[in-house]
Amino acid sequence: MSSEIKKIAVLTSGGDSPGMNAAIRSVVRTCAYLKVDCVGVYRGYQGMIEGDFKPMDARSVNNIINKGGTILKSARCDDFRTPEGRKTAHEQLLKAGIDAFVVIGGDGSFTGAMIFNREYNFPVIGIPGTIDNDIFGTTFTLGFDTALNTVVECIDKIRDTASSHNRLFFVEVMGRDVGHIALNAGVGAGAEEILIPEENLGLDRLLESLKRSKESGKSSSIVIVAEGDKSGKNVFELKEYVEEHLPIYDVRVSVLGHMQRGGAPSCYDRVLASRMGVKAVEALLEGKTNLMVGIQDNKLTLTPINKAIKGHTKIDKELIRVSEIMTT
Amino acid sequence: MSSEIKKIAVLTSGGDSPGMNAAIRSVVRTCAYLKVDCVGVYRGYQGMIEGDFKPMDARSVNNIINKGGTILKSARCDDFRTPEGRKTAHEQLLKAGIDAFVVIGGDGSFTGAMIFNREYNFPVIGIPGTIDNDIFGTTFTLGFDTALNTVVECIDKIRDTASSHNRLFFVEVMGRDVGHIALNAGVGAGAEEILIPEENLGLDRLLESLKRSKESGKSSSIVIVAEGDKSGKNVFELKEYVEEHLPIYDVRVSVLGHMQRGGAPSCYDRVLASRMGVKAVEALLEGKTNLMVGIQDNKLTLTPINKAIKGHTKIDKELIRVSEIMTT
Amino acid sequence: MSSEIKKIAVLTSGGDSPGMNAAIRSVVRTCAYLKVDCVGVYRGYQGMIEGDFKPMDARSVNNIINKGGTILKSARCDDFRTPEGRKTAHEQLLKAGIDAFVVIGGDGSFTGAMIFNREYNFPVIGIPGTIDNDIFGTTFTLGFDTALNTVVECIDKIRDTASSHNRLFFVEVMGRDVGHIALNAGVGAGAEEILIPEENLGLDRLLESLKRSKESGKSSSIVIVAEGDKSGKNVFELKEYVEEHLPIYDVRVSVLGHMQRGGAPSCYDRVLASRMGVKAVEALLEGKTNLMVGIQDNKLTLTPINKAIKGHTKIDKELIRVSEIMTT
Amino acid sequence: MSSEIKKIAVLTSGGDSPGMNAAIRSVVRTCAYLKVDCVGVYRGYQGMIEGDFKPMDARSVNNIINKGGTILKSARCDDFRTPEGRKTAHEQLLKAGIDAFVVIGGDGSFTGAMIFNREYNFPVIGIPGTIDNDIFGTTFTLGFDTALNTVVECIDKIRDTASSHNRLFFVEVMGRDVGHIALNAGVGAGAEEILIPEENLGLDRLLESLKRSKESGKSSSIVIVAEGDKSGKNVFELKEYVEEHLPIYDVRVSVLGHMQRGGAPSCYDRVLASRMGVKAVEALLEGKTNLMVGIQDNKLTLTPINKAIKGHTKIDKELIRVSEIMTT
Repeated sequence: MSSEIKKIAVLTSGGDSPGMNAAIRSVVRTCAYLKVDCVGVYRGYQGMIEGDFKPMDARSVNNIINKGGTILKSARCDDFRTPEGRKTAHEQLLKAGIDAFVVIGGDGSFTGAMIFNREYNFPVIGIPGTIDNDIFGTTFTLGFDTALNTVVECIDKIRDTASSHNRLFFVEVMGRDVGHIALNAGVGAGAEEILIPEENLGLDRLLESLKRSKESGKSSSIVIVAEGDKSGKNVFELKEYVEEHLPIYDVRVSVLGHMQRGGAPSCYDRVLASRMGVKAVEALLEGKTNLMVGIQDNKLTLTPINKAIKGHTKIDKELIRVSEIMTT
Repeated sequence: MSSEIKKIAVLTSGGDSPGMNAAIRSVVRTCAYLKVDCVGVYRGYQGMIEGDFKPMDARSVNNIINKGGTILKSARCDDFRTPEGRKTAHEQLLKAGIDAFVVIGGDGSFTGAMIFNREYNFPVIGIPGTIDNDIFGTTFTLGFDTALNTVVECIDKIRDTASSHNRLFFVEVMGRDVGHIALNAGVGAGAEEILIPEENLGLDRLLESLKRSKESGKSSSIVIVAEGDKSGKNVFELKEYVEEHLPIYDVRVSVLGHMQRGGAPSCYDRVLASRMGVKAVEALLEGKTNLMVGIQDNKLTLTPINKAIKGHTKIDKELIRVSEIMTT
Repeated sequence: MSSEIKKIAVLTSGGDSPGMNAAIRSVVRTCAYLKVDCVGVYRGYQGMIEGDFKPMDARSVNNIINKGGTILKSARCDDFRTPEGRKTAHEQLLKAGIDAFVVIGGDGSFTGAMIFNREYNFPVIGIPGTIDNDIFGTTFTLGFDTALNTVVECIDKIRDTASSHNRLFFVEVMGRDVGHIALNAGVGAGAEEILIPEENLGLDRLLESLKRSKESGKSSSIVIVAEGDKSGKNVFELKEYVEEHLPIYDVRVSVLGHMQRGGAPSCYDRVLASRMGVKAVEALLEGKTNLMVGIQDNKLTLTPINKAIKGHTKIDKELIRVSEIMTT
Repeated sequence: MSSEIKKIAVLTSGGDSPGMNAAIRSVVRTCAYLKVDCVGVYRGYQGMIEGDFKPMDARSVNNIINKGGTILKSARCDDFRTPEGRKTAHEQLLKAGIDAFVVIGGDGSFTGAMIFNREYNFPVIGIPGTIDNDIFGTTFTLGFDTALNTVVECIDKIRDTASSHNRLFFVEVMGRDVGHIALNAGVGAGAEEILIPEENLGLDRLLESLKRSKESGKSSSIVIVAEGDKSGKNVFELKEYVEEHLPIYDVRVSVLGHMQRGGAPSCYDRVLASRMGVKAVEALLEGKTNLMVGIQDNKLTLTPINKAIKGHTKIDKELIRVSEIMTT
């Protein structure tokens, strides 16, 4: 019954992503709008276990929609993986009179929420906040769009200097198991080659491709490499390999690193966060639980969390083909 | 029959939008990849009538994916609205051996293409390039995402000074008949009120809303006004009206203007343009015509042009509700 | 004697500018470093009169160095122009045990400080915070560099769409009495013509120049107009005038407005603010008063406030010449 | 005699920097304005040796003022270090009727120019183009200001995620022999500690400082490390060292790399480039040679090249002190 939910907690968990603050703001303001109490939990599940709570009203979230990071902080939490940890968390929630929570995070955070829900029948809704876009049940995760813009802006800059010196750059982007960032940013930045975990291009074909690119008269080459690329070589080893086997290039490496997680969220991520926060609170008040809010065909959807965390979203074959055609 | 198409022209028409260059690049490179000749038409239909053509190969479009505007220029063209104009255009296309064209533009440009196709049975495919996002048959038009980011970045800056002085700003954004930019950017920028052509809030409710906002302790207020807002007052008149009827505010106006059309396209618009260009050329080679490429549920689609230009996409009621909740 | 200064107040006054927060942070942290108490005054002199003070320590100013606007708010204050207002302000300062203040603002704010100092022999130091760069005794004011970057980024965007349509744009920038923003941003943006208050180009020469620009084969023209331009016409009238007298152009207008005051400060403004804050506090502790901190030849200087507010910095003749050569 | 100079060449040499294109544009347009022929040399001295020249007029440099990199390309050139190489270069210049050249680059490029001038009495003027700001005789080199903005924008993003997770980041910035980028960007980004080649802080004091920072309640710590830092450890070794000796931190590393060389130049760099280009051409026409254009006290100056390349500009002691006070 919706009438049972009188106080909702919100937390951010796992790696942070741009748009988390906008999502917190949305959860808090939707609670205020619907006359439900709202409580922020600091440092993810760790703060839940420690009872690190703070009442939040509509004004607590002024001027954060455009801020990267998360005002509630985030953390990984080993204790929440243990039955004891979850027991303490449950006690803290009860003590604070909290009836349900919204967790903003990735698949690790959702797994914790699902187990907790199963053990204590505690209402939970997830909002997918991760730059990796690897959650099933949503076309876009919060922060993905912003991270893509960050990456293409960086590569635009690298392209300037690459062109001036006719250089080849290997640029490593985030994405340990999935190549969504690499593939989309690679197409967006006009990369000559894109190495992703899902497809092993093979080093021979990479050399061929780079040779062809040089011959076609391009003034520079950018190869995007996802962290989790399966070529068997990291980005520095790739540099050495190419220098050895294709000495026509002056090669450089750039690892974009953690700046991909930060920065003011794009408009898309702010709007998505605002929509998802409303949906999450409304779902809880309608008595729903153990679901993740997603966006599909530009409409909000709810997917069972166990489905969301199972299958990574597949890389788009059509986009791989587009990337090949674009490097003609 | 696809074998009939040996040379494809590409043009940009109507108001320019970020991503047009990325779409030109994609059409040109897809032609190169599929061994079809490609020709650029300068200044839209005007250049078609004047035979202002230029052969383009894969290298002609180097380093333009991240550039705003259109290297082929754009223009409105009254001549193409006349049978004589279109006759001349047809002769020029035949003379240059062009078998089909891809037009990147908005509904005016598509109407021209449709009439031309009807009169001369000439194969045409449209790519929706406009910041207004007002074309039926595609969830997003090229340039919309970039324009939204431009607008929220401007408003973030305006918010800085508005907060420092506890001021109220009316910010006018583009959108003559449709409020997509206003609504999305308004939610993204955390605007206190959003005035769009589709809904007439009414001046009384605006005053009430602003009064409530002041009382709730907000340090500043931003009201987004779409160009085509139906309140009966433009943004300067709104300022005067509020100053007269609600003298608790120090009011300022900002008209964002044409910068909304420019700037480096966002990653999303670059990827969308790349995908749409491939689809447009492939459709022509498959013997299709009189269709517009769109994106729906993150998949490319083809919609008859006459449908695309008929219905404006409706404003999203759910998003209007989100905007109301967010201003709690 | 420096030993007399045990508590320093800091306030921002007049129009805000990017870098004010960085300057507040610097004053606060320098006080903390030198073991002097520090108090923030809200809303400029108005807050001083009302005793709207807040003790500040090093942690009060975390994470504000990169924020536009001013966390202390700013305001114009008519009361401080009256002897009664200043009397009340003095009483409030004494009551709060404040021994000196640093005011961050423009010439209006400095005039107030100077009079107050004269009347009550109260130690004051000024930091020039204004985007207009119109203060004598400093090569650069806080916020000027950031505003220039904001303006050229906007014009880069406008240039994209201007070039695509071969248009002429009149772009109005801030600068009521001085053309520093217009001249520098005009050179930086590659403007074809720059209209500033200091020089009346004359409408005939403007037309000539625009005609020559068109003939030279340029694809677009941007004319920068300072708010206070003395041509006798505002930017909309200039548009009409050119449309009437030089109908070869499709003319548009853009008024950049208040966004020029906001945004994250540039690195230069952040460093300048940090340096000036240290210097201001140290000057007070050395028993100095009635001085403004400036930067000249990349070194910090102190100028008597009465000199600083007298002469506007002159526009640079050499830069005017550069602007003419660049439009060849 | 100025009458002897009828044709001037311009080249970019060594590592590229933002603003080089604006400087090329200025040299070309000043030549056009003063009715002197202008020739671009591709790929620095290498292109000079190979006679890779291209006549340039005012229109050749349209729309490049806001582009990073260099349209003339740049390269290091070993051949120009040999008497034979310089002999060939001289022959090529004579053959092309070139009477003087302007070289935009760093100290290596200037050394080459000076030797060439000495050997062949060939008029040369240098424009300091390098992000390192390490040239004597100019307060700012072209590209320094832009690089600083790039660095602080990156660190602002890293700060978002650092704060969310209470992490310590070591961020490596460019600057092999000089710490200007590290020191200025460190102050601008609010870094907790800055490691530069000019001062060896010592690892013990680093640990102390980090410990104090943690205790003071800061939510994150950023340590900027110049490439050429003399602590004896690179940025990855520093991470390990701190993890071992101060296990209270979760430590991460980010190497900003080549993106620091790219990107649209800041307004300051565009204006500086425009001014320097005019000065360089005028100096040649006045019969001057073997000088470098600089900016000192916001005025253009000329410094003998042999002086410019001798002394690196010293790091600013006052700014080091500011950086210490700011981390209170």
